[in-house]
Amino acid sequence: MPAEIHFKMGKINKIGVLTSGGDAPGMNAAIRAVVRTAIYHGREVIGIRQGYTGMINSDFLPLVSTSVSDILQKGGTILKSSRCEEFRTPEGRKKAYDNLKSAGIDGLVVIGGDGSFTGARLFCEEFDIPIVGVPGTIDNDIYGTDYTIGYDTALNTVIQAVDKIRDTASSLDRMFFVEVMGAEAGFIALYSGIATGAEAIIIPEVKGEGRDLKKLLFEGNRRKKSSNIIIVAEGDEDGGAFAWAEKFKKEFPDLDIRVTVLGHLQRGGSPTATDRVNASRLGSAAVEALLDDQKSVMVGLQNDEIVLVPFSKAIKLHKDVNRELLNLAGILSI
Amino acid sequence: MPAEIHFKMGKINKIGVLTSGGDAPGMNAAIRAVVRTAIYHGREVIGIRQGYTGMINSDFLPLVSTSVSDILQKGGTILKSSRCEEFRTPEGRKKAYDNLKSAGIDGLVVIGGDGSFTGARLFCEEFDIPIVGVPGTIDNDIYGTDYTIGYDTALNTVIQAVDKIRDTASSLDRMFFVEVMGAEAGFIALYSGIATGAEAIIIPEVKGEGRDLKKLLFEGNRRKKSSNIIIVAEGDEDGGAFAWAEKFKKEFPDLDIRVTVLGHLQRGGSPTATDRVNASRLGSAAVEALLDDQKSVMVGLQNDEIVLVPFSKAIKLHKDVNRELLNLAGILSI
Amino acid sequence: MPAEIHFKMGKINKIGVLTSGGDAPGMNAAIRAVVRTAIYHGREVIGIRQGYTGMINSDFLPLVSTSVSDILQKGGTILKSSRCEEFRTPEGRKKAYDNLKSAGIDGLVVIGGDGSFTGARLFCEEFDIPIVGVPGTIDNDIYGTDYTIGYDTALNTVIQAVDKIRDTASSLDRMFFVEVMGAEAGFIALYSGIATGAEAIIIPEVKGEGRDLKKLLFEGNRRKKSSNIIIVAEGDEDGGAFAWAEKFKKEFPDLDIRVTVLGHLQRGGSPTATDRVNASRLGSAAVEALLDDQKSVMVGLQNDEIVLVPFSKAIKLHKDVNRELLNLAGILSI
Amino acid sequence: MPAEIHFKMGKINKIGVLTSGGDAPGMNAAIRAVVRTAIYHGREVIGIRQGYTGMINSDFLPLVSTSVSDILQKGGTILKSSRCEEFRTPEGRKKAYDNLKSAGIDGLVVIGGDGSFTGARLFCEEFDIPIVGVPGTIDNDIYGTDYTIGYDTALNTVIQAVDKIRDTASSLDRMFFVEVMGAEAGFIALYSGIATGAEAIIIPEVKGEGRDLKKLLFEGNRRKKSSNIIIVAEGDEDGGAFAWAEKFKKEFPDLDIRVTVLGHLQRGGSPTATDRVNASRLGSAAVEALLDDQKSVMVGLQNDEIVLVPFSKAIKLHKDVNRELLNLAGILSI
Repeated sequence: MPAEIHFKMGKINKIGVLTSGGDAPGMNAAIRAVVRTAIYHGREVIGIRQGYTGMINSDFLPLVSTSVSDILQKGGTILKSSRCEEFRTPEGRKKAYDNLKSAGIDGLVVIGGDGSFTGARLFCEEFDIPIVGVPGTIDNDIYGTDYTIGYDTALNTVIQAVDKIRDTASSLDRMFFVEVMGAEAGFIALYSGIATGAEAIIIPEVKGEGRDLKKLLFEGNRRKKSSNIIIVAEGDEDGGAFAWAEKFKKEFPDLDIRVTVLGHLQRGGSPTATDRVNASRLGSAAVEALLDDQKSVMVGLQNDEIVLVPFSKAIKLHKDVNRELLNLAGILSI
Repeated sequence: MPAEIHFKMGKINKIGVLTSGGDAPGMNAAIRAVVRTAIYHGREVIGIRQGYTGMINSDFLPLVSTSVSDILQKGGTILKSSRCEEFRTPEGRKKAYDNLKSAGIDGLVVIGGDGSFTGARLFCEEFDIPIVGVPGTIDNDIYGTDYTIGYDTALNTVIQAVDKIRDTASSLDRMFFVEVMGAEAGFIALYSGIATGAEAIIIPEVKGEGRDLKKLLFEGNRRKKSSNIIIVAEGDEDGGAFAWAEKFKKEFPDLDIRVTVLGHLQRGGSPTATDRVNASRLGSAAVEALLDDQKSVMVGLQNDEIVLVPFSKAIKLHKDVNRELLNLAGILSI
Repeated sequence: MPAEIHFKMGKINKIGVLTSGGDAPGMNAAIRAVVRTAIYHGREVIGIRQGYTGMINSDFLPLVSTSVSDILQKGGTILKSSRCEEFRTPEGRKKAYDNLKSAGIDGLVVIGGDGSFTGARLFCEEFDIPIVGVPGTIDNDIYGTDYTIGYDTALNTVIQAVDKIRDTASSLDRMFFVEVMGAEAGFIALYSGIATGAEAIIIPEVKGEGRDLKKLLFEGNRRKKSSNIIIVAEGDEDGGAFAWAEKFKKEFPDLDIRVTVLGHLQRGGSPTATDRVNASRLGSAAVEALLDDQKSVMVGLQNDEIVLVPFSKAIKLHKDVNRELLNLAGILSI
Repeated sequence: MPAEIHFKMGKINKIGVLTSGGDAPGMNAAIRAVVRTAIYHGREVIGIRQGYTGMINSDFLPLVSTSVSDILQKGGTILKSSRCEEFRTPEGRKKAYDNLKSAGIDGLVVIGGDGSFTGARLFCEEFDIPIVGVPGTIDNDIYGTDYTIGYDTALNTVIQAVDKIRDTASSLDRMFFVEVMGAEAGFIALYSGIATGAEAIIIPEVKGEGRDLKKLLFEGNRRKKSSNIIIVAEGDEDGGAFAWAEKFKKEFPDLDIRVTVLGHLQRGGSPTATDRVNASRLGSAAVEALLDDQKSVMVGLQNDEIVLVPFSKAIKLHKDVNRELLNLAGILSI
């Protein structure tokens, strides 16, 4: 462990850090890592509140080592977040740039999802300020990184909720449609489905026969069960858990069918070990990347190693779920 | 601790036990206590599956000491539960009685809520079989007992969920309407509201001005807050969390308002210490009461002492929330 | 809910609040309630850090409504605590009094256990400053109140740990001695023992035959089990879990015996619903009591109602465990 | 998802499955996956109880699909485990082989750690029965796989315990030495140390200066803190947490130093999402490997892909911790 400031060369002196888009557990761990790694290298850090909104409003606060004490284990983000319409306009971005310059901020770490990186990439192109992104979203749907901050915690929150619902489903012989987050990606639904022994899993990545619930549940070698859990990703093209339940109720009027939409509780909570450790690694790596004169890149984890991925790739390419796991889910719920 | 069978006099020899109505965490602890207390007193125990339905279908299984090993800490009910229409008819009850007689069951423990006790009371009047009830419902709304099985666990499940939602509400400056269970009683809403520092609490017991959210949130000495949590009991006469959110959105279009309906996850989960201990006490006391020739009564806890309450009272009288706590909630969220 | 400051008569204008002795989950909820109730009544509040030490060192900080935002759900105490030797001397107390006077503090709320109340009582006698106590200790061993802050959380922490240990005990057919807190009182041991189905419970309140483990575990109608959990209160006169294990190992060399001392993790963690609600009620009641010119009393809960108990009683009298529960524990683990 | 039995060619018809060595959360998920994948491929499965002991005692029970219902989320192992001396002798292994043959078992899945694989390898060499291993140990110290069953759950159990201890440490300005499992490997200590913001981490892999606690805690740019958490792996050559605390107490008599040994609660509990999903994948892959005529190999996960690793490698080679993370831990706790 280091015992002294290790001054690293590089032109960046004052680093701004912000969180943008939906909040995710582990964002605070990433903020803490950004702050302390920057201080370790002799740099100053400025917290920017409420994401890009704070750049436009000059909502800046200097962060020192104690500013980030005791936040590692907390959900949410101490810097707050937002979705900022004004930053989508050239005028908004110009204002943001002027404010950063006035404050002496010459490098940025943006913790957020691909919407946030789209804005960051544009900003990097228009103005002379390097930005490094840190992937923070519970959906795990960012190309170029195996891991995104908050996903592991969200997954565990979901399985604990579904375990509870399973108690009731079993006790009362009910069928439950449980809707989980993942507007455009089925990671949470697929993995939580396997982890809770769901009898069926509906995700946006699967079309056609894979959405034939009747077949998935009742045909072939499927054991006739008195209770069933079906996990539905909220991005489901058929309309989500309520729509599925209604349709099913019509076809099987004897089933006792219920719906639970887990909703926003999936975003919060104290981060898991994985989210704390990986968010710390990524936050620290983002500062190292800035000091290495990187820009317009996201830091990610591939095969447990830190990698740099250009924003252009992270934004445009699509990350697919592991389709073998769908097959596994089917085998294991017989 | 006992080292020998302690044979207690009394005419009951074979006790049937069932769970009825909505499931609640701690019901298994109560079943275990019924079984082992009966065995301790030299009696036999028969588990009746799926509540009153199992009496009508002779769905009986003998229970021995090991039948209830390792269930103390589990949510749901190993005997399953149901709501049984047929038991509401004289024919259904006659059939149930005949089945009990055939099986030699001469006393019953019914674990459930006031709907279940209404059936039990009628059955006791019509047929010569003593029944003792154990209050099991997460709603805590049974007259004559301070405590009902499952309430403490449900309350803790709710506050853990709301703590998570608070992370997001604070990070994104949002207002959340969170709907909790309690169709006719505001216990869960009121206590979870205080326990999570909710800015307002809407319960069925409060009418008029106490439902004026605008006043509760924004007037007088209320601190202007950027995020707010409002807990709404599902039994709310104004239509629940979605209706409240919609109404509020119209009046305050600038607020970023979200809704989460916690739903059935409130019923499940491993019971808390209080639910395990009290369910054990009540289950044991129900057997003692049967052996003491009691019938048509519920065992309850008043001031931490076991009491017997006639079904007639437990069903008809209303248990009110502690209204001073509403005032306290207002003071503490300033 | 209140919409305006409700000015209450009374001579106290500036209330000091401190936490003393061992920390307990829910202390922060009590602090929050003290602060906001005082503000609601138009009073000022001063936080005193590190218990009586802070009075001697003038470690004071003014608290406003936002000072206690977002602490309701946190373990520990934001005011810190300590055990203070100097306060046991007349000189120390004189210094403390002078500091309070200089700061204009004319009433005190002390959150702590009976050691803390002993000091408070002496201070009240020597100096003209009213003190109201709030019972805060995980041990639940204060006379005059059914409830102490932190006990419910500690109990739930213990049962979650023992549930985990049970997994291993069952899988490997082991006997575990688990030592829990409760240096002079067996509340945690007794209730957690029942809640986890412990095969035996050793508490300081029970002497003689009730400590004959061999009899408790293996004689009479005890089922021969391959795994066993024995809960031992740390105050055990026979030397605690390690001593018991050693003695037992000698007598039964074939048993695979292990020991776990749960230790300080029992003191921390986010408080349960009961601890949050009751700590809030007690904190608020303490301020009301001060404004009603009470002094040298503890606020407590008896049968779920707020009561005032003179320090003299709370300190001297002994609160016993419910011995019927010991018998119940024996019956339920057959 | 599959709708029919998919009969796979191969000479194995009846698969035995056992768990061996220390239990780990997720072992039940692996057993479930073994059973259902085998059934899916038209094979029979026999559960062998208590590890190798059960092979020697013919403690066999046939497993069908419902035998493994509702075990996915449970800690421990339904098949029980043991450490078996007799299996280390040629006579013991001969007896085991004869018993397997008598029962018609012609392939084995062994879920355990490297001790278990050492036995399995020998058995494969001596007798004509193919064995596939599944890495199950909370220590994560098996070469050839990034992941072992139970590690993720143990890590999360540890951080939740340390978070609680941090509450007390902060409230009372104490230094805590917390001993965690990992007799020969520092994975749990290192990752939990980062995840809890430990001020120092002592693991067996680090010698010399990296064990100089005084330097790690107080020199260079280390911020003087009033409370400190030091995580010590139980395998520590200096004698564990108690020895460290004693030594430190001598040098710094003014520090308020405490010790907590987390112990066996680290082995239990409901598995995390990662442990449930990965244990399911590995259990299923083990059956596929047997049907593909593999033997004397372990299935593992490398870069999130299933791999086969010869027992010879898995046993002999050493898996190192990521030493960059030690450096990171130092930077982040300044």
